[in-house]
Amino acid sequence: MIYSKIPLAQTVTTLCKTHHIKHIVISPGSRNAPLNIGFTHDDFFKCYSIVDERCAAFFALGIAQQLQDPVAVVCTSGSALLNYYPAIAEAFYSNIPLVVLSADRPKHLIDIGDGQTIKQKNVFGEHVLYNANLKLDLKDSENGTPDNELPIFKNLENKLERFLGLQKDIQSYNESEIHDALTVSKLSLGPVHINIPFDEPLYETTNELSINPKPFKIQNRTDKVDAFEIKSLIDVWHNAKRKMILVGVMQPNSIEEQWVQEIADDDSIIVFTETTSNLNHKDFFPGIDKMIAPLEDVDFKALQPEVLLTFGGLIVSKKIKAFLRTYKPEHHWHVGLSKANDTFFCLDKHIKLLPNTFLASFLPQVTHHTKSTYKATWLAVRQKRRLQHDIYLKGLPFSDFTVFNSIIKSIPKSSLLQVGNSSAIRYMQLFKVPKSIEVFCNRGTSGIDGSTSTAIGAAVGKEKQTILITGDLSFFYDSNALWNNYIPNNFRIIVINNEGGGIFRILPGNKNTDNFDTYFETKHHLTAEQLCNMFGFLYYRADNQNHLEEHLIDFYKESQQPKLLEIFTPSRSNDKILLSYFKFIK
Amino acid sequence: MIYSKIPLAQTVTTLCKTHHIKHIVISPGSRNAPLNIGFTHDDFFKCYSIVDERCAAFFALGIAQQLQDPVAVVCTSGSALLNYYPAIAEAFYSNIPLVVLSADRPKHLIDIGDGQTIKQKNVFGEHVLYNANLKLDLKDSENGTPDNELPIFKNLENKLERFLGLQKDIQSYNESEIHDALTVSKLSLGPVHINIPFDEPLYETTNELSINPKPFKIQNRTDKVDAFEIKSLIDVWHNAKRKMILVGVMQPNSIEEQWVQEIADDDSIIVFTETTSNLNHKDFFPGIDKMIAPLEDVDFKALQPEVLLTFGGLIVSKKIKAFLRTYKPEHHWHVGLSKANDTFFCLDKHIKLLPNTFLASFLPQVTHHTKSTYKATWLAVRQKRRLQHDIYLKGLPFSDFTVFNSIIKSIPKSSLLQVGNSSAIRYMQLFKVPKSIEVFCNRGTSGIDGSTSTAIGAAVGKEKQTILITGDLSFFYDSNALWNNYIPNNFRIIVINNEGGGIFRILPGNKNTDNFDTYFETKHHLTAEQLCNMFGFLYYRADNQNHLEEHLIDFYKESQQPKLLEIFTPSRSNDKILLSYFKFIK
Repeated sequence: MIYSKIPLAQTVTTLCKTHHIKHIVISPGSRNAPLNIGFTHDDFFKCYSIVDERCAAFFALGIAQQLQDPVAVVCTSGSALLNYYPAIAEAFYSNIPLVVLSADRPKHLIDIGDGQTIKQKNVFGEHVLYNANLKLDLKDSENGTPDNELPIFKNLENKLERFLGLQKDIQSYNESEIHDALTVSKLSLGPVHINIPFDEPLYETTNELSINPKPFKIQNRTDKVDAFEIKSLIDVWHNAKRKMILVGVMQPNSIEEQWVQEIADDDSIIVFTETTSNLNHKDFFPGIDKMIAPLEDVDFKALQPEVLLTFGGLIVSKKIKAFLRTYKPEHHWHVGLSKANDTFFCLDKHIKLLPNTFLASFLPQVTHHTKSTYKATWLAVRQKRRLQHDIYLKGLPFSDFTVFNSIIKSIPKSSLLQVGNSSAIRYMQLFKVPKSIEVFCNRGTSGIDGSTSTAIGAAVGKEKQTILITGDLSFFYDSNALWNNYIPNNFRIIVINNEGGGIFRILPGNKNTDNFDTYFETKHHLTAEQLCNMFGFLYYRADNQNHLEEHLIDFYKESQQPKLLEIFTPSRSNDKILLSYFKFIK
Repeated sequence: MIYSKIPLAQTVTTLCKTHHIKHIVISPGSRNAPLNIGFTHDDFFKCYSIVDERCAAFFALGIAQQLQDPVAVVCTSGSALLNYYPAIAEAFYSNIPLVVLSADRPKHLIDIGDGQTIKQKNVFGEHVLYNANLKLDLKDSENGTPDNELPIFKNLENKLERFLGLQKDIQSYNESEIHDALTVSKLSLGPVHINIPFDEPLYETTNELSINPKPFKIQNRTDKVDAFEIKSLIDVWHNAKRKMILVGVMQPNSIEEQWVQEIADDDSIIVFTETTSNLNHKDFFPGIDKMIAPLEDVDFKALQPEVLLTFGGLIVSKKIKAFLRTYKPEHHWHVGLSKANDTFFCLDKHIKLLPNTFLASFLPQVTHHTKSTYKATWLAVRQKRRLQHDIYLKGLPFSDFTVFNSIIKSIPKSSLLQVGNSSAIRYMQLFKVPKSIEVFCNRGTSGIDGSTSTAIGAAVGKEKQTILITGDLSFFYDSNALWNNYIPNNFRIIVINNEGGGIFRILPGNKNTDNFDTYFETKHHLTAEQLCNMFGFLYYRADNQNHLEEHLIDFYKESQQPKLLEIFTPSRSNDKILLSYFKFIK
């Protein structure tokens, strides 16, 4: 085995292994050479090399999104790690475990004019769960220059002893910090930052470890029911005739079928889901906006729940937020291990359990209402909307709306679907996504900055066919995502190119002026074709419904390279068609 | 005139105008609509629309680098502004005035599960000179929800009065904060962050300003000589027989010819410059590495200065840093308005003056040594190196080395030259750059992340022919730079494509293994051709010296689109040629 000669590098790689962090996404650099040497020479690790750190971090995020286990990114010092920040914020708000291993210069070389040097300590502020600022290994330093933080020991009589003692302290401090950071990332599901100073020489190797880290107990995520807490909810629940469950971003198979069915059987419960909830039942209510956009005051009052139960992460629908903020439930309980958001300004309970653990404990203790009209009333509304939806689609001209209808139907069974922000994921909510398809989107910060990289990471992490549906701005923003040697041949991208930020047409403001085109919609005439040539994607292009349907027949078939389908829709009618839709389904 | 209806938006745009901030780089978004409306409807401002915020910020940096006056970037809330961070760090370490105007949600909508929301306050930590966290205009808020920071005034008897009082306080607070931030950016030359919360509705406009900001005194940069301080240096200077002036990154024409000549006439002064010093005299010493790489202990002792005077920003040469850290001068004085770096661990004086102001005051007071052999000795060495350099070049096979030799000679007179990190700017130092050419490189953080965007910004800011010389990794990293509607037709890019990070071959470590190729050199087979097709660049390709010389004849000629010349060099011999060079010139 080949290791870096630097003990601190050995410590980091060894502890990553102890913590079962297998996937390591490396960006090239010299300062991080000691880490790269250790990771890439040990077959335990699956290493990836990605140059653009922004893409590297989103790629790692995609792997971690699927594995729900920490994935590491490794970079050199300086501005390199700042390029990680968008993905780190996304990981923070989406509860995805991401471990940043940033190489740094020794403290005495920071802010004195050395190249590739910034103030790396705590640079991700409150957007990481843990900052481990490791200390320079005294042995690392060629001339023994100590880290500035250490007490100066120049004048001590017994220099060697003092040196060894300090070295032991540092080793032990570093081990604990690494261990704590990795534990937090895994248990609390979020990003952590480990900053690692190295002094030159950086490239020396050895065949034997010179460190022997203290054994640490590796903890696993658990949740424990507080019977008393659960009991306290039962009365309120029983007495409520209108209960709403609203499910945000959630991993597939988070809730056992048994509990899904039991909830569905209760006539006093309405379950609102989004595609990213990955939770399906014929009696649930996907397509929230379709349901509530046409409602008026009297309807809202009828829909207003007494108890609102939320699971999962962030909610896509702005309309449900506006509704529940105005027509507040008496109680809002959030169930989940991570932070509870007081999205509707009436959160009164955070039950720190996995939704399934909660339901397994809670549901057997409650008697179900079978005579409430709450659900039935809204199922009737849902039925009406669905009929109107189908009528509206008939004879509709080629547009974003018809395109989404077609492509969602085309997605192969059991694929992994990744969706870009922001129009794409909003359109998705209006259509039925088959149950076998798992849906993901970066809704933590809802950025357009890393959807493609995330999707590729997810494809690598999940090892099943993955399809990305994205708008043009988001796709071009993350075009470097394709500079990636690990894209599976069955990976597919569908770009809906309406030549700008279509979402801005749906928002208020003056349309169809030069000013609007340039500064709001950001019109362009780019296509993805040259990028496909550059990065080895098979390219398909569709300008009308027939082309689209034709291409979709071939598109998912096995191939020797990944494929991209670009669909050009008419930007100036898309917004009208969508806005009319909401009027029509009323 | 059209303004946003939101007073805070009016205040920001009005004060930017008062402070003469003309260039506004906008990235699309909804939360920042109130700012975009104000900026884009006022002809005073020159607005640019750039989607990828990473590129937008580097583009703005390029403009500001040339103007040496603040340039603003405007973005929406959420991860958008995190993409600014690499450019902000560069601005911080390169002393470039950059004003970040980030739209934000009102405080009560942060961290409660709303989309595109992160903790924006102070998010750039210590890498900005000023954080102005503006407060929500009470009038902004549709339902009058106050910013959480305000005292709750619900139960006050005289609500309206209190409301108006608070509103006035907030207006005055916001005005002061904006003014202070803009002043700091301009006077201290660096990035500042103004975070601006807006509540909906965001798109409403008006024809009249509803604000009337207090008049502020606009300050200008000045430096004032402290005669006593200057006097204190004279004795040391007089007594020193070996004085070295080392010039880092500096704006062209920073020092008047008169003082340049006077320094050059002093036989006890050696002036080391880099291409980025933009300071030329036939008796100065450009090409530091060429001079000192072959030196041995005895030579270093002879070269060791008694007094080291530094001007300008960061130094490219690692070898001079290593030399001066080992052979420390007795005195290191830094002259400059911004922070002084203790690069050699012996800084004993920071003279806070512009170099020219200092020299104009200092030089007339000193008598010059005309009999020291210090300079003469090293001029002889320089001469020897130059001869060896020319001999080495003869018969040298096509390689990075010969390519740099050719292209530097080809650069049209009086152009603006932008150079990428890191090999490119290092190679540049080995060749003579004609005096009329101004040279810039992002040496603040020495990142590969924004060279192309910066170069395009500089071309726009300076309005003269600009040429970017860059390596392949840096070019592909910032490929979105070309997604820019403001690239002048006379803009030129030269990509030296050695299919990976050539610099890693020059560093120690094992070469020519799969592991090295993948994780260090990061080999690839990309070309810039498809990007040129995509973004409307004329593409030239050279694989050998003849092709190169041929293309260079045409390359700078007037054209209807910008041009890119990609030169493919043999990666596996480049490093050997460079390393042999340093042995040969000895």
